[in-house]
Amino acid sequence: MAESPRIYTAALIVIGDEILSGRTHDKNIAQIASWLGVQGIRLKEVRVVADDEAAIIAAVNALRTVHDYLFTTGGIGPTHDDITVDAVAAALGVGVEIHPEARAMLEAYYAPRGGLNEARLRMARVPAGAELIANRQSGAPGIRCGNVFLMAGVPHITAGMLDALTGTLEGGAVLLAETLGCWVQESEVADLLRETERAHAGCQIGSYPFFREGRAGANFVVRSTEPDGLAACVAALDAGLVALGRSVIAGGI
Amino acid sequence: MAESPRIYTAALIVIGDEILSGRTHDKNIAQIASWLGVQGIRLKEVRVVADDEAAIIAAVNALRTVHDYLFTTGGIGPTHDDITVDAVAAALGVGVEIHPEARAMLEAYYAPRGGLNEARLRMARVPAGAELIANRQSGAPGIRCGNVFLMAGVPHITAGMLDALTGTLEGGAVLLAETLGCWVQESEVADLLRETERAHAGCQIGSYPFFREGRAGANFVVRSTEPDGLAACVAALDAGLVALGRSVIAGGI
Repeated sequence: MAESPRIYTAALIVIGDEILSGRTHDKNIAQIASWLGVQGIRLKEVRVVADDEAAIIAAVNALRTVHDYLFTTGGIGPTHDDITVDAVAAALGVGVEIHPEARAMLEAYYAPRGGLNEARLRMARVPAGAELIANRQSGAPGIRCGNVFLMAGVPHITAGMLDALTGTLEGGAVLLAETLGCWVQESEVADLLRETERAHAGCQIGSYPFFREGRAGANFVVRSTEPDGLAACVAALDAGLVALGRSVIAGGI
Repeated sequence: MAESPRIYTAALIVIGDEILSGRTHDKNIAQIASWLGVQGIRLKEVRVVADDEAAIIAAVNALRTVHDYLFTTGGIGPTHDDITVDAVAAALGVGVEIHPEARAMLEAYYAPRGGLNEARLRMARVPAGAELIANRQSGAPGIRCGNVFLMAGVPHITAGMLDALTGTLEGGAVLLAETLGCWVQESEVADLLRETERAHAGCQIGSYPFFREGRAGANFVVRSTEPDGLAACVAALDAGLVALGRSVIAGGI
């Protein structure tokens, strides 16, 4: 038997009352999940917690030791409800310090915008020993403390921070995916899905039904780290659907 | 001092590899959060977990005992990757049984659609002792096991199940919210926000910055269960912004 490849995993903590109140629709989960996939890292768990120090500390400590990487989004701005830096520092058991490079970046950014005040200087505070994550979108950087990455809450700023991290994190085999779409009720082909998955070790088949244009359909997503295994499983599923008299739309509907 | 009102809390577990892969953007968090708010119940934590029985069991048991209500979305369909019922039953320490009323509903629904097969009958399986949650959108019902509510993954089907539950869950004081919008960088008014919140017990102020039309702005959301306290805090914040020479847009920008 070949040795199993090392799987790299990550967790994400979305911090913010605005998500838990339903006021803001989170966009960072899907964005970070997709980005991690490309890095060869699997997002295994997400927790959304309130702007509450105890809740953030508990989530950080539950997740940072069981995953290779932990990301947070939100709560690194200049106002009183931005408590992520303090909470992460407390979780890691370190103090909070002003990062000189972050201070310099903020000074340069705010020089033509009224200058650095106490609130803006809050954005230079980091857990002791942390490094910065560049942010070309605005003055405030993201923060890396070992395997914990503190990102912005605003999705396009997080996108810039992810861009700066691209290619810098060690990952493993990328989880490949291929989709077959079919105008069929998933409940008509449940046996085929189960048996095809069972016959192809290392492959998972997800079934995602929908109802559009008055018709029931489903997309079947086959996932594997092995390109040959993936292709064989997709071919078997395709042939199975055709044998049941269904036409298959490669790439999904 | 008046007695503090009882706060009712809920947690949500979003179940599905498709969310963790980034393929599907979750819409249930915001939908359920908003609905709970109207019921006088606060969503305190969300976890997104994989289609993995151990992960679901761990999340269910971590959350169902510390909140008044626990909701799950996803994994109650007819295919092999739908394992929520089994996982919740295992978490509760009960068996799985066919619910006769669910079976009858599915028989009626599928009579003109090829009839009930083994896969479709899977959707009548419930943790022993569970009740059904009506679903006018499709044949398959949601499931209630004590304080645990199993909802669909497809958002419009979940919407129908929430509709059926409206007004049936005991809640407490509704968390009221009022928003003031202002074309200001939040870092310029951070002191005002902190001091206004501190001066109004029982109120929280959230600051949500944005950058639109080439200008920085922010919405300030004031939350409280007390209408009078809320109004006083909003008035103080409004006056404070005006005193700083800013115009305020009631309702937010």
